[in-house]
Amino acid sequence: MAFVTRQFVRSVSSSSTASASAKKIIIKHVTVIGGGLMGAGIAQVAAATGHTVVLVDQTEDILAKSRKGIEESLRKVAKKKFAETPKVIKTPMTSQKTFESLIDFSKALGKHPVSCKDTPGFIVNRLLVPYCMEAIRLHERGDASKEDIDTAMKLGAGYPMGPFELLDYVGLDTVKFIMDGWHEMDAKNPLFQPSPSLNKLVAENKFGRKTGEGYYKYQ
Amino acid sequence: MAFVTRQFVRSVSSSSTASASAKKIIIKHVTVIGGGLMGAGIAQVAAATGHTVVLVDQTEDILAKSRKGIEESLRKVAKKKFAETPKVIKTPMTSQKTFESLIDFSKALGKHPVSCKDTPGFIVNRLLVPYCMEAIRLHERGDASKEDIDTAMKLGAGYPMGPFELLDYVGLDTVKFIMDGWHEMDAKNPLFQPSPSLNKLVAENKFGRKTGEGYYKYQ
Repeated sequence: MAFVTRQFVRSVSSSSTASASAKKIIIKHVTVIGGGLMGAGIAQVAAATGHTVVLVDQTEDILAKSRKGIEESLRKVAKKKFAETPKVIKTPMTSQKTFESLIDFSKALGKHPVSCKDTPGFIVNRLLVPYCMEAIRLHERGDASKEDIDTAMKLGAGYPMGPFELLDYVGLDTVKFIMDGWHEMDAKNPLFQPSPSLNKLVAENKFGRKTGEGYYKYQ
Repeated sequence: MAFVTRQFVRSVSSSSTASASAKKIIIKHVTVIGGGLMGAGIAQVAAATGHTVVLVDQTEDILAKSRKGIEESLRKVAKKKFAETPKVIKTPMTSQKTFESLIDFSKALGKHPVSCKDTPGFIVNRLLVPYCMEAIRLHERGDASKEDIDTAMKLGAGYPMGPFELLDYVGLDTVKFIMDGWHEMDAKNPLFQPSPSLNKLVAENKFGRKTGEGYYKYQ
């Protein structure tokens, strides 16, 4: 795996022109643009499954952090449970060959890909975020405590986390950002209405686990 | 455990008058009215945790079926994953003593009770049913296949079943019955709008697992 600093990578787009040729593209060399949590994770998985990988970001500092994260992850054999299903998105401009090549590439990474149209939130976020918002509203109406809602969903529906635990895990700033975007697109939909308690916590910089407090307090 | 046939059980309501006395009620004797899937399950759990139980229903036939179900369940040590959290509902007429006695009784059954106000769907159904409906709508919009939605929620969110598997498991007739009731109460809420595919399947008597076909086909 190579770590490369670049302001802009021009050559990447050229790979998609190969989709016009007769056979599917077998992806062997992977360039990941952006060395954050997601980019570094993708780079790691691609390298671990026999692909040559170049990880690109704007500064050496970011790449040093990516490298550190990957090293720590390799030591911990981290369970990345939210990254087991790559979503391969088919836009009107995506050729069938490019689409199929990306499905094959996802499988070569040892993942189980699913496909989805280019719609807000794709599948998981589109379903999880409104569900979490409904849990917030149930709590805001005073119908049940957040602890009891979390317990009911874990023991009653077999979910790995309750909705308030999940909100704190994902980050309340992120959830608010998603909701604000959806609300802007479809302001009349009650599903996308802002939540007073979410807005209050975010205004107080209580973003969840990463800041030590969200709907719950953390050590 | 006793199996009793009665058209009407008058004495049951008298037990709640004890809530006016000084100390909490310790429930030792349990009368379950209705020997269907839920009633028989409650009777079984109560008997297994040292309570004396009377199971009441209208005919000997129903009780014979209840008895058979309990015997089979004891043989299979059935995993009742949807019955691990009794919801103790506090209405304006529920005294604190009655409420606390029922919390204690739930714990004595080896369960983890949660409390909720008397609102439609309580906690689990109030969150699960709209989430499943949103999954149906995602599919009806043509954004993703039901198989990919199920896969994404199982692998991407760690859920034990995908929403379409859950719908077929619960029963599409039951889900439609719940949705129709909510729609009647709050007709403008997009969350409670009827689904064409759900209505079509129910009209065709395709209720899910129990009829051999719903969103999926079963052997």
